[in-house]
Amino acid sequence: MVDGVSSKLIERVVDHFAALPGIGRKTALRFALHLLNKEKSDIQAFADALVQMRETIQYCESCHNISDQKLCSICSSTSRKKELICVVQDIRDVIAIENTHSHPGIYHVLGGVISPMDGVGPNDLNIASLIAKVQTGEIDEVIFALPVTMEGDTTNFYIYRQLEKFNITVTTLARGVSVGEEIEYTDQLTLGKSIQNRTLFSQTLKS
Amino acid sequence: MVDGVSSKLIERVVDHFAALPGIGRKTALRFALHLLNKEKSDIQAFADALVQMRETIQYCESCHNISDQKLCSICSSTSRKKELICVVQDIRDVIAIENTHSHPGIYHVLGGVISPMDGVGPNDLNIASLIAKVQTGEIDEVIFALPVTMEGDTTNFYIYRQLEKFNITVTTLARGVSVGEEIEYTDQLTLGKSIQNRTLFSQTLKS
Repeated sequence: MVDGVSSKLIERVVDHFAALPGIGRKTALRFALHLLNKEKSDIQAFADALVQMRETIQYCESCHNISDQKLCSICSSTSRKKELICVVQDIRDVIAIENTHSHPGIYHVLGGVISPMDGVGPNDLNIASLIAKVQTGEIDEVIFALPVTMEGDTTNFYIYRQLEKFNITVTTLARGVSVGEEIEYTDQLTLGKSIQNRTLFSQTLKS
Repeated sequence: MVDGVSSKLIERVVDHFAALPGIGRKTALRFALHLLNKEKSDIQAFADALVQMRETIQYCESCHNISDQKLCSICSSTSRKKELICVVQDIRDVIAIENTHSHPGIYHVLGGVISPMDGVGPNDLNIASLIAKVQTGEIDEVIFALPVTMEGDTTNFYIYRQLEKFNITVTTLARGVSVGEEIEYTDQLTLGKSIQNRTLFSQTLKS
C-alpha cells in the first residue's frame, strides 16, 4: 500500500490506463510510475494533447473517417475518385491503405465487422449509409478491404447481398503470397488461392 | 495519411503514448483511436488525473517511496519498526511486499539496480542514503529484496560490502519452491537451493 492520498491519485491514473485496450492494472501502474519520473511540463503536454485531440477531432459525416471538419480531407479532395469506395473496418486501415498510395478513390469506415459473438450486428455498423451512397447511382465500384476472418467474410457477404441489385462492380483485395514471404511457410489456403488466381508473369514486369 | 490537422493532433497523442515503456507506435495509435470514441468528460478526467498525480506526488526524503508529504506514510507511521529496513528496487516492490502484510519494518527504494550494460552505476541509485541510515547506529537489520538476477545479485553484493563493517544483520528473501508450483517444473537452481535450505516440517505447521 502506498501513501493514502498518493495511492488515490495513482489509482485514478491506473484506472484510466487500464481502460485502454490490452492494458492490465500491472502495466497501467508501470505507466503511472514511469510518468512520475517525467518533467511536470511533459505531463502537462500529454494531458493537453489528449484533451485537444478529443475536443477537435470529429468523424467525417460521409465516410466516418476522422476529420477536423464535417468532411474529411479525402472526401473533400477534388483529386479522389468519388465513384470508387473502399470499405474498411476502422481508421487504422484507412491509414494503412493511404500509406500504399494505391487507392485513388474514397473510403467508407464501417466501425467494425459483424460479430454475433461480440454482440455486433449490422445495425451497429455504418452499413446503411454505404448502401445509401450506392443508391445515389454515383458509385461504380465498391472494394471490400475487411479483415480475412470469418467475421470479415460474413460482413462482406452481408453487404454484397444488399449491393447485388445495383449495377456496380464489387471487388475484394487480392489474396496471395506476401512480398518477402517464403513459399514453404505460406499457409495452405493462401497458397492454394494464389495458384488458382495466378497472374501473367509479363504483367508483374510492368509494375 | 489522415486529415492534415487531425493527423497532427493524433500524432502528438501517439508520441506521448509511444514514450511509455513497452509501447510501440502501432499500439499507441490504437490507444489514441480508442480514446477518440470515449466521452469528452472521460478524456478530461484522464488528463486531470495525470496532471494532478504529477503535481502532487513527491518522493519520501527518507526512503524514496512515493508520498504526498516529505515523509511517506510508512516512514512516519509509529507502528513500523524503524530498525528493520527492506531494500527494494522500486515502488512497485513496496506495493507488492506491503500487500503481503509480512514486513513490519520500513523500506529503502534504490530506484533501480546496478547494471553496467544499461549505464546504471552505484551513484545513480539511492545507496549512499541507505549507508548513511545504517551509520546512525539505529538499524538492526537490512533485508535485501532485489530481483533474483545478475544485476540484483551485483547490487546486493555491492551494498553488502559497505554494510559489513557495521554490527547489523543482513538478510535476503528466502529462495525456494513457489506456492502452487509443480516440483517438476521448478527450475534447477531454485530446486537445488530449496533442498539445501530445507526447513523443518514442524515449522511449516505453525504458520
